[in-house]
Amino acid sequence: MELVFLWPGKTRNRHLQAVLDDYLQRLQPFCRARIVETPEARGIRESSAERILETEARGLEKYLKGGYIICLSDKGTMMTSEELARFIQKQAMSSARKLIFLVGGFLGLAPRLMEKVNFRLSLSPMTFSHELTRVVLLEQVYRAMNLIKGYSYPK
Amino acid sequence: MELVFLWPGKTRNRHLQAVLDDYLQRLQPFCRARIVETPEARGIRESSAERILETEARGLEKYLKGGYIICLSDKGTMMTSEELARFIQKQAMSSARKLIFLVGGFLGLAPRLMEKVNFRLSLSPMTFSHELTRVVLLEQVYRAMNLIKGYSYPK
Repeated sequence: MELVFLWPGKTRNRHLQAVLDDYLQRLQPFCRARIVETPEARGIRESSAERILETEARGLEKYLKGGYIICLSDKGTMMTSEELARFIQKQAMSSARKLIFLVGGFLGLAPRLMEKVNFRLSLSPMTFSHELTRVVLLEQVYRAMNLIKGYSYPK
Repeated sequence: MELVFLWPGKTRNRHLQAVLDDYLQRLQPFCRARIVETPEARGIRESSAERILETEARGLEKYLKGGYIICLSDKGTMMTSEELARFIQKQAMSSARKLIFLVGGFLGLAPRLMEKVNFRLSLSPMTFSHELTRVVLLEQVYRAMNLIKGYSYPK
């Protein structure tokens, strides 16, 4: 199985980036895992939300081929950590050799990208900053891989 | 209003500690906010869960007086960020001058402490590591303070 974590732009908070790097490292014994940062829209005023989302969509869609796409969305399905583990395991055992976790930028994702995704996942009823969302996602996927392998629960 | 974030033991992941420090700093213009780290149980085998929880409870309970206690619990109530903001605002306007956010260690909290709390809050149906829980909590409280003041939403 291959895991791709896909989002527009770098993680500007260097401490959160360090936590992401750490989880990515700890995922390697389980599977191929990488973070792909596509170009983010710059120099466009926030009032032009559509233009920002479209600019970012063009970067993201290049990486959306040939995998099962799970996108994070506040309108998505909430799960327990155990349910997420079973969900990932099921996908890994079915056709999907590659799981793509897609996280929008600070304005979210273009609607036309949302139509391409296979599953919408919500981490919480609360709204997390988009950079913290990345960290929580990687922690949950790392936890899921441990659960799948039957390793003791990382607390 | 005064905010106290209370938990046993230091945050060992220095990157997560740096993120906590940052949120604590950003909370200062809104209110007095501090983190209190009480002694954590050491040298006790994990199989003696009750002894660990009781040892930690003795440290925590010293700081549980004179405030409204919100404890994080996987059996707690889930809220949106807006609902949390309204909840904090309501407590701030009522008798509670001090809000105490209590987060258990890696084994959770002693049952006798759970009985003392005023409200149980759940951040997600998912299980986060206890150190990541601290970060998500501070981000949500910081977000709540911004929402209460009507500041633009930190993304």
